[in-house]
This record gives sequence, structure tokens and C-alpha cells, in this order.
Amino acid sequence: MENTMFTCDKERLEDKILTFSKFGDAGHGGITRFSLSPEALQARAEFRKRMEAVGAEIKTDDMANMYATIKGSEDLPAIAMASHVDSVRNGGNYDGVLGVLTAMEVVETIATQKIPHRHPITAMIWTNEEGSLYPPAMMSSGVVCGKFDKEKMLASKSPKGKTFGEALKESGYEGDQANRLNPKDYVAMLELHIEQGPVLEAEKKDIGVVQGVLGMVNYRIRTYGQSDHAGTTPMKYRQDALLAAASAIKYLHEELDKLDSNLVYTTGEIVCHPCVHTVIPDFVDFSLDARHQDPEVIKQVVKVIENIPKELDKCRVEYELQWARNTIQFNKELVGLVKKNAEAYGYSNMDIYSGAGHDAQFVAEMLPTTMIFVPSKDGHSHCEPEFTPVENCWKGANVLLQTVLNVDKK
Amino acid sequence: MENTMFTCDKERLEDKILTFSKFGDAGHGGITRFSLSPEALQARAEFRKRMEAVGAEIKTDDMANMYATIKGSEDLPAIAMASHVDSVRNGGNYDGVLGVLTAMEVVETIATQKIPHRHPITAMIWTNEEGSLYPPAMMSSGVVCGKFDKEKMLASKSPKGKTFGEALKESGYEGDQANRLNPKDYVAMLELHIEQGPVLEAEKKDIGVVQGVLGMVNYRIRTYGQSDHAGTTPMKYRQDALLAAASAIKYLHEELDKLDSNLVYTTGEIVCHPCVHTVIPDFVDFSLDARHQDPEVIKQVVKVIENIPKELDKCRVEYELQWARNTIQFNKELVGLVKKNAEAYGYSNMDIYSGAGHDAQFVAEMLPTTMIFVPSKDGHSHCEPEFTPVENCWKGANVLLQTVLNVDKK
Repeated sequence: MENTMFTCDKERLEDKILTFSKFGDAGHGGITRFSLSPEALQARAEFRKRMEAVGAEIKTDDMANMYATIKGSEDLPAIAMASHVDSVRNGGNYDGVLGVLTAMEVVETIATQKIPHRHPITAMIWTNEEGSLYPPAMMSSGVVCGKFDKEKMLASKSPKGKTFGEALKESGYEGDQANRLNPKDYVAMLELHIEQGPVLEAEKKDIGVVQGVLGMVNYRIRTYGQSDHAGTTPMKYRQDALLAAASAIKYLHEELDKLDSNLVYTTGEIVCHPCVHTVIPDFVDFSLDARHQDPEVIKQVVKVIENIPKELDKCRVEYELQWARNTIQFNKELVGLVKKNAEAYGYSNMDIYSGAGHDAQFVAEMLPTTMIFVPSKDGHSHCEPEFTPVENCWKGANVLLQTVLNVDKK
Repeated sequence: MENTMFTCDKERLEDKILTFSKFGDAGHGGITRFSLSPEALQARAEFRKRMEAVGAEIKTDDMANMYATIKGSEDLPAIAMASHVDSVRNGGNYDGVLGVLTAMEVVETIATQKIPHRHPITAMIWTNEEGSLYPPAMMSSGVVCGKFDKEKMLASKSPKGKTFGEALKESGYEGDQANRLNPKDYVAMLELHIEQGPVLEAEKKDIGVVQGVLGMVNYRIRTYGQSDHAGTTPMKYRQDALLAAASAIKYLHEELDKLDSNLVYTTGEIVCHPCVHTVIPDFVDFSLDARHQDPEVIKQVVKVIENIPKELDKCRVEYELQWARNTIQFNKELVGLVKKNAEAYGYSNMDIYSGAGHDAQFVAEMLPTTMIFVPSKDGHSHCEPEFTPVENCWKGANVLLQTVLNVDKK
């Protein structure tokens, strides 16, 4: 390890967390801060103010992604740290914004402590990561990384019928396409994020050394029965689609539980027709979401689904693949640096995969990229009880700082 | 058996079925004919026209129940035949209306064939049996038989906010409370209805000799878990309320299947929260409806529900009784007459209980009452494919006619 281990300013970081928690404060511990909303623009203004105060130059690109950059001592591409400041409805004060606040803290630490660095260093806000008002999620990283068609994204409509393109124009943050994150002007992107799960807390680890984003498959399973009157149809004549769905759910759990213990799978959504207490259901449709880092395990999941009985409880059973994504592996060198720095600071840590999607997964296909996780209290996320102690946020910021300085030395 | 066996006019009955199928014709085989709607008023006008044509006197009571009565040779209370002409949304051409059409057919047969009879004979329309726009079902028989409070019923609102009281006033069919069906002016009520189930068809029987209406219990079963991210929460930390609900449904089916084979029970409605494919459900609520003629069997059902495990798949399980009704036994003498007449005509028949609710179940507590069932093709009901061959409708009408004439002789 290098001799000098710098650290961020814990109080300054805490002040940022408190300050940003006011932008969209829902009045009971959490926030609603949709991308490009007045609340999100307050957060952007605060970002600009604090970054300009330490000499950063502010730019935006054509998707309103916002870049605050301090110069380096040489004419080199920049090192980016990025996350998002938008939230889901009644979300918490950590998902996304903590990655921006720790990025700011790293820039402030380097600037105020005058830490020598060769590369420019950029703190960045991705626009509309949650896709709360304007789907899909990870919209702007998707456009910048060539995953989504920009015109289609501009046409994305809020429930009230406003397009993302209109919101973009009105925001005043629409900039130049030439300012987009790109592999010529940037050498790496680092994203600090809360885990959004219970593992780090349960395992008593300070830092999650993120290896990548889990591959996943998403299926719909459907059962087809016969709708009849609840009071007049003897049991032997029935084809009850909800009973068949219950059997299918039990079957899938039993079979999938036999696979690798790191597999996560969820039957989270269920639709029943006609869903009346006096009528035997004739149709049930439920979701199955399964995630694992190893494509071989995902193949085993697919096999379990393909082997589901064609008929359960006299009902026809069908499945349909909705979508799938391959596991994204983060840059091994960056992952190694995060691990080494966590160790050097004496922070307990563990390797972990992200089960949730992040802008970093798109960027990883364009630039060397990795993520740093900090613990989520009780695993809560996308809800108001979302919480990470400031001590853990600060430890994450220190690992982020040191990793940026390592990349700078390369 | 009496020497003379009269029969109804099959072609005239078929003409009525066809004519009434136009009132509220939804264009693909079925009808939508909400109580007191313009379509229902067309049906009432046709009822009036045809009944007045054979000399019947028309009255309505304060709930717009409609009575068409032909005089008898003596000053005696009347014999009523009744059902309803309103339907569910996209219902069929038989549920309810067939009971009115066969009652009309009996009146027309007696009047045109000049069959001697001592009692006045009444064909009757119950208002708002389905409760499609203005809940609850069986509203007007409930008021007339003292089960429901009239003021509360008048305040019942359609989804668009109109009250039943307003619809009643506008219909022009609001009459005098003194005209209500009552035990002084009426000696019996008979209701012919489609079975709404598959039993008569499967058993190849023409006539269901209805013994009564099944007693029932209706419960809600609820499972309480913990809502977490589908991608980030290892299986061992999960409390999945939908998995618990699937286990509860399987458990209930397994246990209830051990009870009497005539028991019918249904888990027809399920609500899942938050019902998002990427979130582990924290709450599921499903219905359990169970019906049987024997209160002892219903007690066994209650015991199964009370013994459901308090915890399934690490989720708390609760149950709540929503409502219960005791089995209604129809008048033994009338039931015996229906049986005897079916035999006398040479119609195959079987004893059966009604699993569905009917106006007759309320009337049975006020007057000697019974019902006659005819087969439902494929057991369909409350849907457009609802069908009963005219031959079966006619056989039912003949049994109805003969039973009225038997009661008349008493």
C-alpha cells in the first residue's frame, strides 16, 4: 500500500447528507425526488454551489447528466465518480444520492487538502436512474452507453402525459452531447452505493467489494382453469387456476431451493382472474425473477422452469420468458484496488454481487468501472427507513478516495 | 297423481326467451341488463304487455317489485312464482329471467287453457337480485323479508355515484308498500332457476329438486412477510408472504378435501402487496368461501381454518370470518310436490341444494317456498355462454305449472 492514507471529512459528509435530505423531504424521514423535478433541481443547485466552491468546472450533456471536474496536473483523461440524486416515490436518503455525496466529498478532500493528482477528477450526477416518472430505469446511462435509443427516451411519458424531452428542456440542464462520459475523455468510473440488501449488516462488514451485477431471467408463469360458480360446482368438476398457481409456486420454490445457495429468486407479482370470492379463478399469471452471477446456475433455473408440469390440478401451465441479462463483471483491477484499500484502512469487507441494476452496469461495457457498497440497515431500500450510519458512509468515501488516487497513479 | 297433466306451450316459451334476449343484448350472445336500467325497463314493459294480454292485473310495491296476477275462482291468497330480470355485466340469457319467463308461461297457460283454479296466481319480478350496480345482491327480497334496512338500501350507490333511491324514483315503477309479497296475501312462492352448476348436466337429469340453499362461511386468510429487494436479499433472510399464501392455499385444500365430498370451497380472490416483480411480497390476503347443507360439516371447515399454522414460511398467518349463513331448508311439502310432478311427467330428476344465493332463500323464512332447477350447459353462469336447451326450460315450466295447480288444490 502507499504510505499516505488520506481520509475524508466525516462532519462535512454528514452535513451534505442532512442538507440533501431536505430536497424533497416527505416529512416523515424520507424523500420523493423525481428526476428533473423542482426538488431534484434544488439538489443539482446545491451540487453546483459546493463543487464550484472548490474550483470545479460544471458541465452538462444532452441528457442533463451533470459533471463537476477539478483539473489535474497533466493533460490526461478524467477519473469519474457517479451516481444519481433522483429517488422513487417515498424513497430514502441514501439510494443514489450517497454515491453523489461521497463523490463530492472526495473532490472536496482532494481540493482542500491539495492532494497531488495527475488526472482531472469528476463528480457526476446521472439523470433519471430510477425512471420513477419517466421509465425506464437507468435511462441516461443507457443512452450514453448506447443501450437505449435517445428519441424513444425523449418520448417517455410521465403518468400525467408530460414527456421526458419536455422535462429536459424545462429543467435548464440540457447540455452538449460532446460532454457525455466517453472512453476517450475518461479512464474509469467508480460508483459508491448502499447495498440495498441485508448481507453486509448481517455479516458485520463495512465494505462490499462489488464484483459485478448479477445476471437474471424474468419469466411469467400462467395457469389456465375454468371459471365457475363457487357455490354450485362440485370439487371434482373444478379446474381452479389459483390452486394450480399455488402448486406451481410451491413446485418452483422446492426445485429452485435445490440449486446454488447464492441464487435469489422471487415470485413477487400475481394477477388472478376474475378475482371474485364467489368465482373459481380461470386464469392466474405470476412473475418469477431469478438472479445469479454464474450463467450455469441461471441455465439450471431455466431448466427447472422448462420442466414445470404442463398440467397442475387439471389446469394447463405455461411459461414465457420476459427478459434476461447476462452477469456484468466489473473491471478486475479496479475491484482489486477497492479490496486492497478496504484492507489497508482496516475495514472489514467481503466480495459481493449487486442484485439490483445500476448505471455502472451499462458504463462497465464502455469504461473500466466498479462499485463500492456500504451496509443498508435491515436491508431496507426504496423506502423511508433506508439508513446507513455516517461512520459507514465515511468509510466508503475513504475507500472511494483512495481508489481514485490509485487510479490516478497508474 | 291427478288425472290431468297440463303442459305449457314450448314455442311460446321459446319466443319469450328470444324476445327478452334483445333487452340489453351485448352483441355477442349475452346481455348486460342492470336493474332499473333502460334495458331492464324494456323487459318490464314486455312483461306488463304480455301479462295484461291474458287478463292479469299489474301492481308494484315500494321496492319496484312487479306483480302480475290473474284472479282465482275464490277469495283466497295468491300463489306466487318469481325471479328477476336483471343480470350481471356480460351475463347470459337464463339466470333469473328464465324464472320470470316460465312464471309468465304458467300464467298464460292457465289463462289461455282456462284451467280452473281457486287462488289468484301471480308472476313476479324481484328488483335488483344481482346487485350489479347497487349492492347488495337480493336487495329487494331482503327488504321485503325484513333482512335489510330499506333506508340503507335506498342510499346504496352505483360506481358513478347515483343512489338506488334515485334510480327507483326515475324508473316509474315505485309502488305501494302494501303491495309487497306477504304471508297474509300469498300462500307460497316458487322460483324456477338455472342450476348455475354442472351437476344436472353431468348426471343427465332434467329437473333439480331443490332442497334448500347451502349454509356457508366466508373467511379472509392473510399472510404477513417482509418486503425486500428481489435482487439483493438472500433466500435465507426472506419472509415471502406470497410463498406463505401458496402454502396456506395448499394446506387448506389438503385438509378440506378430507371432509365430506359434497363440501364446496373456493379460494377465488387474492390480493398481493406490493405486487411488483422485483419486490418480495410483504402481505397477501385471499378469500375462502365454503358451503355445505350440514352445519356439522361447516363446523369441521371452521376447525380446519382455526387450526391453520400460525406461521408458514416464516410469515405470520391470520384468518378473519367475514360472514356466515345457515342452510335454508325449503318447505318439505312443496319440495315433495316438485319431486312427485317431475316423476309424473317422466322427467329424470335428482335432489340438489343451491350453492348460490336466491331471493327464495329470504322468502323461505316468511312463506312456504321452494325452487326448481333446470340444467346449465357446461355449468356456465354469470357469463355469456350461459345456456339451457328450450326442451329443458319447457320441462321445468311444466313442473312449475303442475306444482302451482297442486298448491291451488290444497
